[in-house]
Amino acid sequence: MKEFALKGDIVFTSSMEEFSVHSSAYLVVEHGTVAGIYDVLPEKYKDLVVYDKGNALILPGFVDLHTHAPQFNQIGCGMDDELLSWLSEYTFPEERRFEDPDYARELYGAFVDTLAVCGTTRSVLFATIHKHGCELLVELLKNKGLSAYVGKVNMDTNAPDFLTEDTEQSLRDTEALIEHWKGGALVKPIITPRFAPTSTRRLLKGLGDIALKYRLPVQSHLSENRGEIAWIAELFPEHDAYYKVYEHYHLFGDTPTLMAHCVHLTDEEIAHLAKVDVMPVHCPDSNLNLTSGLMPARRMLNQGVRIGLGSDVGAGHAIFMPQVIVRAIQVSKMYAMQHPKDKALTLPEAFYMATKGGGQFFGKVGSFEPGYAADMLVIKTPSYKDRLSVVERLQYFIYHGDTSDISERYVAGKRIDSCEAYL
Amino acid sequence: MKEFALKGDIVFTSSMEEFSVHSSAYLVVEHGTVAGIYDVLPEKYKDLVVYDKGNALILPGFVDLHTHAPQFNQIGCGMDDELLSWLSEYTFPEERRFEDPDYARELYGAFVDTLAVCGTTRSVLFATIHKHGCELLVELLKNKGLSAYVGKVNMDTNAPDFLTEDTEQSLRDTEALIEHWKGGALVKPIITPRFAPTSTRRLLKGLGDIALKYRLPVQSHLSENRGEIAWIAELFPEHDAYYKVYEHYHLFGDTPTLMAHCVHLTDEEIAHLAKVDVMPVHCPDSNLNLTSGLMPARRMLNQGVRIGLGSDVGAGHAIFMPQVIVRAIQVSKMYAMQHPKDKALTLPEAFYMATKGGGQFFGKVGSFEPGYAADMLVIKTPSYKDRLSVVERLQYFIYHGDTSDISERYVAGKRIDSCEAYL
Repeated sequence: MKEFALKGDIVFTSSMEEFSVHSSAYLVVEHGTVAGIYDVLPEKYKDLVVYDKGNALILPGFVDLHTHAPQFNQIGCGMDDELLSWLSEYTFPEERRFEDPDYARELYGAFVDTLAVCGTTRSVLFATIHKHGCELLVELLKNKGLSAYVGKVNMDTNAPDFLTEDTEQSLRDTEALIEHWKGGALVKPIITPRFAPTSTRRLLKGLGDIALKYRLPVQSHLSENRGEIAWIAELFPEHDAYYKVYEHYHLFGDTPTLMAHCVHLTDEEIAHLAKVDVMPVHCPDSNLNLTSGLMPARRMLNQGVRIGLGSDVGAGHAIFMPQVIVRAIQVSKMYAMQHPKDKALTLPEAFYMATKGGGQFFGKVGSFEPGYAADMLVIKTPSYKDRLSVVERLQYFIYHGDTSDISERYVAGKRIDSCEAYL
Repeated sequence: MKEFALKGDIVFTSSMEEFSVHSSAYLVVEHGTVAGIYDVLPEKYKDLVVYDKGNALILPGFVDLHTHAPQFNQIGCGMDDELLSWLSEYTFPEERRFEDPDYARELYGAFVDTLAVCGTTRSVLFATIHKHGCELLVELLKNKGLSAYVGKVNMDTNAPDFLTEDTEQSLRDTEALIEHWKGGALVKPIITPRFAPTSTRRLLKGLGDIALKYRLPVQSHLSENRGEIAWIAELFPEHDAYYKVYEHYHLFGDTPTLMAHCVHLTDEEIAHLAKVDVMPVHCPDSNLNLTSGLMPARRMLNQGVRIGLGSDVGAGHAIFMPQVIVRAIQVSKMYAMQHPKDKALTLPEAFYMATKGGGQFFGKVGSFEPGYAADMLVIKTPSYKDRLSVVERLQYFIYHGDTSDISERYVAGKRIDSCEAYL
């Protein structure tokens, strides 16, 4: 891969405290990673190809740590329901459709195109139980040049017949897919029990064993909704906390682990999350749309928890991560009104969660420090914004921008082209 | 104006309870208003020009009852502040720039283009104190073919010098503009004291007199923020409620009146709002971004208050009204979690607020019942949505759609063309 530099107004968050801003600077890319940022190019780069983007913003690509690819076509449907009824009425029938390869190809295609259009260069995805559909999703992501963890969903109880797997077949399919995907650099597998209530103990044990055997990361849902938590207490009376069901089966921190939502955790549970370094994924739109609650992000940060952001399509309706950033801030403001000592999230904090914070799950991703993957977005802002500072133009883009403001997208130094506007 | 019909999947809310759906039907337009909706065209229309839009959705144009045109270029800036500091740090310096006609033409131009792109066919706008800028804004709206109430802002105290008017000059300018605009069919003036704290008693009296003399509607802000309410108590100790300041000067219900925000009203105040039929404008994004609070929409509806929706740019960041609809629902869900007897808003209710509810301020606007203004949007949805019901495709558009889904816009039967994509 050739070396090059992008020149423009470079902004990223190396820490949560503030934006790192390099105006009219050069971002040098070597072998798909960031070699450095320079106000003036050093002598050794005198022959480097430079793409001058004027005063365009150059930002890290966005990282979406939790979303359901097969729910793309149900966005907006049934938003008057709560979690459990919404699942049975809308989600399960929609996921069933992905047993049809033509449907899977069309809808996963539209979804992957949308990720690219939105500048979501890295994502962690739930697919469905269907093996062939998972293969299709991986192929589409690879062809597009996007990076992702893709989870074949496992569920063998408490679901409609048409989505209830035979336990052993579910485990065999999971392992077969892992073998099939081996060696993928940008698209990788992740162990994905849908959530504890749709898993038998045998399935959870089998998945934990696979996670340990292949050293694979894990994702699931945790404490989204009070009804769900009560259900867990009924289903797994041997565990006195929801997370312990996962932990018991090596699905909670033995390998890198994401837990979507984490809205209703006690302080003790939050402390444990921090201790075993499980990352909660904050999905603010979803938590609003399904009336799940306000995730206490500040309380988690104060206890040393690392938080990522998720669009959580289809319960969340916005795939475009800047909108998720804004919603995380808005939710934290509501939370702060009720709990004045828990200050609202700042823009740098929420931006960090959607770039370097979530990017940690992929390794050195989401920042422009040397050695980080060169996932880059080029953002054009209107000419009447020229008098604004770089950070003010970034604020504009996050709050009011849309996908048409993104003129170029790169993943690991490679440009993603041909973005169909399916949005 | 010629007669014609649009054929497609027609959706609107004649009441708040549910969507009125006419699939594959004809919406007949005569003299800029809706003549009727027909499954089969009657004989009398056999020669009518029909534009067949296939299965496109045909919706009423959106009505934005509260927004600040000159704050378009500050969207997203300073969202970590609360109302009063945000005003002095960002808003007032930005509004000052509108004394420059070149700046006003460029930014108002971008704003008006964005309204059109967004399908906001009717809006009620705050301009600035600057007379010439107001004239420009009116001219741009007329040229675009959009309908609006435009308010020259009045403020003569408690503001920076550069935005503090001489009281008599302020009143003279207001009256001169009214005379200048007389007879506009689509763009009309509205009396617009910024809010009580930036008004002397003399200014309020003068504006109330002008409102009565010309029978003009009134708009201002009410009870957005607790700090503001406390300030009112200091500034106007002779009134024991914020609204009474306006009411004392004939600026609260003597003519049709809009009051933005109304977040922190007592039950008695809400009852009075209903009694004098003053419309609160719900601006959910703004109330979140400035940590103002959760407007108790359900409590107001229960008391018979008529509510409209506002984008409230620049404290609100989304001009596109579907996003305001979604945010109103999301906020109502959070409110319902704290007050379980106040049920969340449904999609038909919030859609109604953004169409017929707000449209009432313009007369027969925002619905497709016979006699209503033919403000129409044609919405194309992706082909993979074809198996969804009409209402499900509407849900998709409201929650996930964007301006590129709107293929045509009409105001009073006239097509709005040449929408520049400034978004």
